[in-house]
This record gives sequence, C-alpha cells and structure tokens, in this order.
Amino acid sequence: MWDRLILAPNVWTGGANARLLSQAALGIDAGRIRYVGPAKDLPNEPQRLARQVEQHRQGLLTPSLVDCHTHLVFAGDRSDEFAQRQAGASYAQIAARGGGILATVRATRAASVEQLVETAAPRMQQLIADGVAAFDIKSGYGLDLDSERRMLQAARALGRRFGVTVRTSYLALHAVPNDVDRGRYIDAAIDWLPTLHAEALIDAVDAYHEHLAFTSAEVAKLFECAASLGVPVRLHADQLSAQGGASLAAQFRALSADHLEYTDDAGIAAMAGAGTVAVILPAAFLVLREKQAPPIAALRAAGVPMAIASDLNPGTSPLLSVRLAMGLAVNLFGMTVDEALLGATAHASRALGLGTDAGVLDVGARADIARWAVDRPDALAYWLGGELCQETIAGGLTVFRRKAR
Amino acid sequence: MWDRLILAPNVWTGGANARLLSQAALGIDAGRIRYVGPAKDLPNEPQRLARQVEQHRQGLLTPSLVDCHTHLVFAGDRSDEFAQRQAGASYAQIAARGGGILATVRATRAASVEQLVETAAPRMQQLIADGVAAFDIKSGYGLDLDSERRMLQAARALGRRFGVTVRTSYLALHAVPNDVDRGRYIDAAIDWLPTLHAEALIDAVDAYHEHLAFTSAEVAKLFECAASLGVPVRLHADQLSAQGGASLAAQFRALSADHLEYTDDAGIAAMAGAGTVAVILPAAFLVLREKQAPPIAALRAAGVPMAIASDLNPGTSPLLSVRLAMGLAVNLFGMTVDEALLGATAHASRALGLGTDAGVLDVGARADIARWAVDRPDALAYWLGGELCQETIAGGLTVFRRKAR
Repeated sequence: MWDRLILAPNVWTGGANARLLSQAALGIDAGRIRYVGPAKDLPNEPQRLARQVEQHRQGLLTPSLVDCHTHLVFAGDRSDEFAQRQAGASYAQIAARGGGILATVRATRAASVEQLVETAAPRMQQLIADGVAAFDIKSGYGLDLDSERRMLQAARALGRRFGVTVRTSYLALHAVPNDVDRGRYIDAAIDWLPTLHAEALIDAVDAYHEHLAFTSAEVAKLFECAASLGVPVRLHADQLSAQGGASLAAQFRALSADHLEYTDDAGIAAMAGAGTVAVILPAAFLVLREKQAPPIAALRAAGVPMAIASDLNPGTSPLLSVRLAMGLAVNLFGMTVDEALLGATAHASRALGLGTDAGVLDVGARADIARWAVDRPDALAYWLGGELCQETIAGGLTVFRRKAR
Repeated sequence: MWDRLILAPNVWTGGANARLLSQAALGIDAGRIRYVGPAKDLPNEPQRLARQVEQHRQGLLTPSLVDCHTHLVFAGDRSDEFAQRQAGASYAQIAARGGGILATVRATRAASVEQLVETAAPRMQQLIADGVAAFDIKSGYGLDLDSERRMLQAARALGRRFGVTVRTSYLALHAVPNDVDRGRYIDAAIDWLPTLHAEALIDAVDAYHEHLAFTSAEVAKLFECAASLGVPVRLHADQLSAQGGASLAAQFRALSADHLEYTDDAGIAAMAGAGTVAVILPAAFLVLREKQAPPIAALRAAGVPMAIASDLNPGTSPLLSVRLAMGLAVNLFGMTVDEALLGATAHASRALGLGTDAGVLDVGARADIARWAVDRPDALAYWLGGELCQETIAGGLTVFRRKAR
C-alpha cells in the first residue's frame, strides 16, 4: 500500500519532458513519487493502492516550487530605508544614517539562532504558502565566524521546523565589515569555510562578485578552497556591471551564476559549456530600477537552463513569492511562460544541487508537490498576486494547506 | 455602547492629515468610526464603551484599501493567450485565432448574471483578502444592452454578497463589437445609458479614449448624455498615445482620468483645475511592456491627487492585489511610499466618488478598516507579495479574517 494517492483533473509534471495530464493520479510512498499518469491506467482501485486517497474535483497539481536564491535569514527591518530611498535619499545618505547592508549585519549579529529562526519563520511560511518546498538560504549578514555560523544553523533549523528542503550557501564574501582590513577579512572568511563545512553547515559556497564587492582574484581564492573540500560553488555575477562573473563561475563549474544583467556572449558560452544554471532575479532588477535586462534571448539560444528565484532580502528584493518572480520574469524580461514554469521548478532544483530529485513529478523523485486553484499551468505566471496555492507537499507530507474561507 | 472597539499597537489613519498612532483605539458603531486616537485617551474603560472589544498585541490598522479601477466581472480564461503572446505571437495573430478583448466579450455574453457572479467571486475574494473593501467595477465586455445590464447587475450582486462597497462604471465605449456599424453602435451605447441609469445600475460613466478605441468627439457625446443625467464620468486617457484625454476628462469635471502615460502639461493643468484624480495603473504598464511611464513628478508638482488601482482585467492586467499595485507604482514609477498609501486609500476613494467617506480613519467616516501583519505602513509598499492582510472590515463588519495556520 502506498501512503497517499492524489487524484486531480489537471497535473503538470514539469521536467525535461513536461506533460499536461487530465484526470490524473499521483501515488506517493515513503516520501517518493510511485506513480504519475492517467487515473484510468492505475493498476488497481484507488482504495486498494493507498492508505489515503484524495480526490480533487478542480485545480492543478505541479511540482512544488524551488526558491534557489534567498537571503531569508536576517534580523531587523529596513522598510523605513526603502521609504526614504523612494522619497529621494541616496544610498550614501542612507549609509550615513546607519542604513544599508551593514544595518542588517548589525541586527543579525545581535540575534541568537532562536531569534533568527523566529524572525525568518514568517517569511518562510509566506513562501511555503505560495507553493515552495525547497529553499536556498544564504549566510552573509554575519561577517564574523560566530554570526555566520548562527545564520547557517538558523537555516538548518528552519528546514527542520517546516519539514522542507533547505540547502545552505556560505556567503561570507558578501561585504567587508566596518573597521576590518579587507585583505585580512577575506583570508579569515576563507579560513572559516573548512570549520563550518566540518560542522555540516555548508552545502554550497557563494560570493558577491561586483565592482563594489569582491574581485575575481578574491573570489577565485575562496572557490579554490571550496573545490579542495568538494563543495560546489555559486556566484552573484554581472549584476550591476560586466565583470566576467559568468565566466568565472563557469571556470569553477559553478552550480549557478545569478543575476547576469551584464553577462556577455563569452560568459554565456562558458556557462553552456560548464552546465552552469542562469538564475534570473527580476525583483532585484525592479527594486534597483535597473535598465539593462539579463540576456534572456542569448541564454535561450545557447541552451543555458534558466532558473527564477525570489532573491528574498531586506535591501534589494523584499519579495515573498516565487510565483510573482515568475510573473516579473515573464513581463519584465520576456521569458516565456514555459521557461518561467521550468525556471521555478526543474532548473531551480538543478541550481540548488538537487538535480532531478526535485522540481519534477517523476517516478522515484521526491514527492514535492503543489496544488493550485487554477486549471492551467500558464495561469501561475499570468496572475500577479493572489493566493492561488491550496496545498504544499514536501517529501510526501502536507506542509501547508489553505483553509476554507 | 459602541458595537466594536479595536485596540492595536499601530494605527495609520490615512487621509489629508495622516497620523501614525501608537497604542491606539478605534471605536465603531452603526458602521461608522466613532473614535480614533490613543487608547489612553478613551473616555472610559474599553468594556464600558463597546459590546465587543478586540485587543491586538501586534500589527497595524489602516483604512481598508480602495480598488478604484477594475474590470473584475468577466467570463472566460485568457491565460493561454498570455502564454502565446509571451512566446512571440502578435496581437494580430491572437485576434485572428479568436483571442483578445472580443474573446472576453463572447464568453461574457454567453454568461448569465449568476455565472458572472460565480466567476468573478473568487477574484473579488482575493482582493478582499488583500485588504480591499471598496471597488469600482466596470461593464464593457457586454457591448449590447442585455449583456451590459447583466455585467452591472453582477457587480451589484457581488457587493451585496461580500458586504463591500461597489461603485459601477458603465463602459460601453470600450470596443466596437464585430459586425456592427461603428456610428450605430456608439449611438446605441449612448441610448442604453438612460435606460440602465433608470434601473439604478450606473454610478459613473467611463470610456476608452485612444487611437485604437474612441475619439474625443465620440466620448464627448457620451459624456454630454451623462452630464444631462447628473452621472459623473471617468476616462481611460492617454494610455498608449497622447490624445488630449486628460484635458477631455477635465473638461467634463471627471472624477478621474486613468492610465495617463502620455498626458502632457496642459492635461495635467486641466486636471488640477477640475479636481480630477489621476489613477495610476502600473500592472497594465508592466504587462504591455510599455516604455513611457506616467508623468508622476509633474502630477505631484501640480498637486493632482494620485490614486493607484489594480486595473484587474483578463487582457492587460491580471493583477489580484492592490498592495502589489502600490509596490509596482513605487518601484516602476518612483512614487513615494506615502503617495502609494494615499493612492490606495483616500485618493482612490475620491476617484470612486466616495470622497472622504472612505479611505480614511476619521470620526464619522465609514468603518472600512484593514489589519496587517506588519508594524509600519511603509512595509505595505515594501513587501512584494505575501499574505500580509489579517482582517478586512467593511462598514464595521468583518468581511475577511485570515485563519491561523
């Protein structure tokens, strides 16, 4: 007997051979998908196949969404700073008032693991209620060993608390703290990597490669350390200027290069060769009021898989919905609806290092499933806003179910 | 004894003299606000003042939101057409396949009042769950007398069903139906106005003034009929090209001119003189991938009140959240957060013809209130997405309350 059997009028399987099934069935056992296909082809009566049978008369099942780029663990509130910036204050003025990323660093350093979990939990709940069952969570607001560790511990604790997949990214090369020598800070951040890795807190290593952040040489030094430990890397690349970030990421066979607004053809070719996923982050583009969109058409032409993520963070992407990131990617960047659907599922899973184990409804894959109040997958990128997710299932267990009004 | 007394740590009153109150109280009786101010200044103990006392330990109360421009009554599903357009199909190709506005007209004509209510109800529920308690609902997908009537009847029925304020806009000059002589259609649409007005179905008259829709002379003829009946007018103006729409609206002392991407200084001056509200519709701008933003700075300098609305419609603005419209207006157009807050409350109320009776927490005003899971009003425009609204109160009665997870 399987654990669960879900019958629904519409199922979009996702993945490389995405199919749209009518009157379909999903069999789940031990957290894995055991059957996906037409209900009429089931090998037996539903009640003889599974202990729990659920029959939905309307709606759509898809792979649950994967948010493959978030900074969702942080303390403090920067909505006031956002209001000041929109009222005309410059970044320099806000920094002089104690705002900006270092405001988040101050608040995060002052928080315990428990406090970090409590402040991040409502944000994670919002994303789960929007269909997300697997997350990237980055460190990078601690910028000292203990604070980076607490962020990563909070990320692990959030995954356990909500029963969802969390993959951590160690992002100590995010900013240089105040009153610390730059060279010494970078060396220290690299030193912390084996320590935190030995504590099983690091699933990937990430860095912010930008003219106002870290150089190619600095990032390469970190990535060499990651390679020596066998930890995969990811990179914030070419967001605000052309820095050769995509090529640098590809050189280290990164899981992903993220942002990519200024990536050139050489960078795209390198990513295609290395199998590096392009993570598109439209809300940061929107909030920063950028003018140059990432090279979607060239990425498409080169066959680089494109993922879409929230980039949830307090400074440049206060976004609580991956589905809205899909809508923004379509409307701002001209991605197709099919690209948006794969971008928030199978391609995001690959960027997260989960490969084909998540983001697709295939026999053998994790039973990570979202149920929606729409009939067609197109509608998920079409509707902007709205509480469309009815249920989120992670590893076969329901982690969110919308209550009737 | 009042009906209700709500105590909350944060209250933003909205309106011309918006105040942010701490440890505040809202007294409600007979659907109206009887008290708004510090809890410590209440004239008596809470339990002696009201039959029902609610004490919230966290969160924020504001005026509920006002969605002053929607086409939320329609039948059919155009998410497939959206996907085709993003995949490269032109508007002409989509029209040739039977898509576009006339697809919505076909589906709407085929629907009964009850079917229109059933299809629109989930959309209205989404907006109510996002804090909206007052709505504009336009006709304009019927384009014959009976179908326009059914749309307006459905709008009235939705207001009754959900206990919220609905103001209808008669928008027969939205498109010319297939196989109908243009001049005859316009004359007929004007003829239907007194009929539907006599049936108490029309609160305002609206028209789509654009090179691909209706001319100034055609709109003026309709507006003269409206004026003769004492019905206020509104106008879809200068969205895709400079047509002098804002000036035309002002000439008829319109409640609002909406879109305004191409409005010039003369139009802005005319609006300022006539007291016409500028309704900003950022989701349509986003979905149509427009390049020219409305003249926010010039509207601000001229003192034209700016409202923000969803423009919820199946073709160009599939948006289910006024709060997201606020966020888009801030991030796409450089509106300030204060402008966004007033834009979705007091200024939207004015565009709807409700004046200062809604959209503001003042003694004597309607008790239309939203309660949010944030502490500061800035956060409502800062967070993109997320289920932040906890409760929506319309005329003193709770019409939505979020259930605990």
